[in-house]
Amino acid sequence: MSKPIYDRVALIGLGLIASSMFWAMKRANLAGKVTGYARSQETRDTARRIGLTDRVCDSAAEAVEGADLVVLAVPVGAMGPVAEAIAPHLKPGATVTDVGSVKRHVIDAVAPHIPEGVHFIPAHPLAGTEHSGPESGFAELFENRWCLIVPLPGTPDTEIARLRALWEAMGSNVDEMDPDHHDLVLAVTSHAPHLIAYTMVGVADDLRRVTDSEVIKYSAAGFRDFTRIAASDPTMWRDVFLTNKDATLEILGRFTEELFALQRAIRQGDGQMLFDYFTRTRAIRRGIIEAGQDTAAPDFGRVKPRE
Amino acid sequence: MSKPIYDRVALIGLGLIASSMFWAMKRANLAGKVTGYARSQETRDTARRIGLTDRVCDSAAEAVEGADLVVLAVPVGAMGPVAEAIAPHLKPGATVTDVGSVKRHVIDAVAPHIPEGVHFIPAHPLAGTEHSGPESGFAELFENRWCLIVPLPGTPDTEIARLRALWEAMGSNVDEMDPDHHDLVLAVTSHAPHLIAYTMVGVADDLRRVTDSEVIKYSAAGFRDFTRIAASDPTMWRDVFLTNKDATLEILGRFTEELFALQRAIRQGDGQMLFDYFTRTRAIRRGIIEAGQDTAAPDFGRVKPRE
Ligand SMILES: NC(=O)c1ccc[n+]([C@@H]2O[C@H](COP(=O)([O-])OP(=O)(O)OC[C@H]3O[C@@H](n4cnc5c(N)ncnc54)[C@H](OP(=O)(O)O)[C@@H]3O)[C@@H](O)[C@H]2O)c1
Ligand SMILES: NC(=O)c1ccc[n+]([C@@H]2O[C@H](COP(=O)([O-])OP(=O)(O)OC[C@H]3O[C@@H](n4cnc5c(N)ncnc54)[C@H](OP(=O)(O)O)[C@@H]3O)[C@@H](O)[C@H]2O)c1
Repeated sequence: MSKPIYDRVALIGLGLIASSMFWAMKRANLAGKVTGYARSQETRDTARRIGLTDRVCDSAAEAVEGADLVVLAVPVGAMGPVAEAIAPHLKPGATVTDVGSVKRHVIDAVAPHIPEGVHFIPAHPLAGTEHSGPESGFAELFENRWCLIVPLPGTPDTEIARLRALWEAMGSNVDEMDPDHHDLVLAVTSHAPHLIAYTMVGVADDLRRVTDSEVIKYSAAGFRDFTRIAASDPTMWRDVFLTNKDATLEILGRFTEELFALQRAIRQGDGQMLFDYFTRTRAIRRGIIEAGQDTAAPDFGRVKPRE
Repeated sequence: MSKPIYDRVALIGLGLIASSMFWAMKRANLAGKVTGYARSQETRDTARRIGLTDRVCDSAAEAVEGADLVVLAVPVGAMGPVAEAIAPHLKPGATVTDVGSVKRHVIDAVAPHIPEGVHFIPAHPLAGTEHSGPESGFAELFENRWCLIVPLPGTPDTEIARLRALWEAMGSNVDEMDPDHHDLVLAVTSHAPHLIAYTMVGVADDLRRVTDSEVIKYSAAGFRDFTRIAASDPTMWRDVFLTNKDATLEILGRFTEELFALQRAIRQGDGQMLFDYFTRTRAIRRGIIEAGQDTAAPDFGRVKPRE
């Protein structure tokens, strides 16, 4: 077995992402010893029961003590307070990273708390499911998915390379990006689509003439996919929208503009406009399949959870 | 082997739905002999090469000659002209059915052409993929999916029961519904979600600051699902929106209203409103999984194509 990449790792937050990281690190022996901490007694009890981390601690301070890598895996809005709480306990020379879905806000909230001599290297694995909590993770989650590292100026290359090596060993492809660009790209590819899916499912729920049970019973492909997206964790997504406000609102503005143009085409019976539009969007799909981010097969290249 | 449900079946249009019906009927011996017709020489050649239908005909008139069941499996906008072309050649006592995604328009376009003594029984299988054409079909497409039959007043119960038996033997669950209600339910569960997915993919394509390749490369879960929906056949969907105009525009109007409310909550930082909204939409997902229309597993209960 190869030597671990980090000797001691601390996972702060024990949900989908942290638990998947733990199983992925364990499988490939990437960490010597992993400690974990979650806010609630319930999650800590579950983690102890299923063997999630080598030692579950009752405080974040205790968990980070002596850690070479500290992973902040809590909702984006909780990153600042968590960083503040652990800051006095961080080992000199340690790396703090996070997995938050928004980067500018996390940097602004976390960086001021990081002591001299500790490296803060923000990151974001582009991998997830609609499930959450300590029992939702599985070692394969990051396989063939991108992880975007968003290094701050002045971070030693060796420490960036080490974090990159960890993500690569968990199966990810790694790229570097600057925080504002990250937040805009993610607003397009993830944040706006999630808000739209939430909205459409909300509309269906509101309709009194089409009863709930019928909408559910006959939910065809389009809507079924939306409901899955709209089943994602409410806390996580509330924080994403509140902390990536500008980019999300800009993309939603453009979306509304385009939607109005398509609605007008429907109202006016402009079949050519609709046909051309739908032909253009088809090409993007081909690009995604060719880029290997999805497959043409009907399980859509999704990873299978453990068990 | 049990006796076929229909002695002679004619499939007009040889795309995803017709080819899936053929393989499903063949597998369970539901039809004595199946003829097929498609508009283009290319599709007819492909059908002959892959053995799609027992006899591929060079005209729709020839294909329906002597048929006990004629299935119109062309885009919704083409149903009227096709019905007009085959009308003089229909066998007395035959049943004409269709598989169109919109029902009121198809009834208005087709019914006037159906001769006395021939039964017209509209239907709509709630099953599909984003693929199209004669090679995209597979026998399992309709398994555990709903098929909605929309009978017209005066249709003999025996003929409705026979068509129902065919769909059940192909694996579907069958319900009856009236046409306007069908079109509203489908606007919510399928038509509006498809337009929204097309729009979001179009927005991504338009963005010059976020280059195409980045949107594709980093396409996260939400957007990836949208691109798959937005890869569906442009002709089929143009026709759906043009022929289910009123219901689609009504649902889109409600959608825009809700989206504006959520955008306002984001702008004003109203986290409680967002959290409550997302919690409510989560419950719908549970309903769908409990109703058996989807599974919690990550291949989402999708059927596998042949081969
Ligand atoms: N899910 C995805 O698809 C995905 C993908 C990429 C990145 N991310 C990012 O990864 C991070 C974690 O997401 P996840 O999906 O792993 O979430 P999760 O499964 O819901 O787990 C969240 C964890 O954070 C803890 N937590 C919640 N609120 C907290 C607070 N106010 N203070 C301290 N701890 C708190 C929870 O503790 P308790 O269990 O004790 O409540 C739980 O252990 C988020 O920043 C998210 O944006 C998520
Ligand atoms: N795909 C779905 O998800 C789905 C689900 C339920 C119901 N439906 C409905 O099923 C019907 C067929 O859809 P599909 O997915 O099977 O489509 P498809 O794979 O694109 O096949 C359409 C067939 O119709 C023929 N056709 C196209 N335009 C025509 C015209 N103007 N006149 C005569 N024939 C024409 C095509 O002939 P060529 O090949 O020669 O061009 C082809 O054989 C549509 O009404 C659709 O609304 C579709």
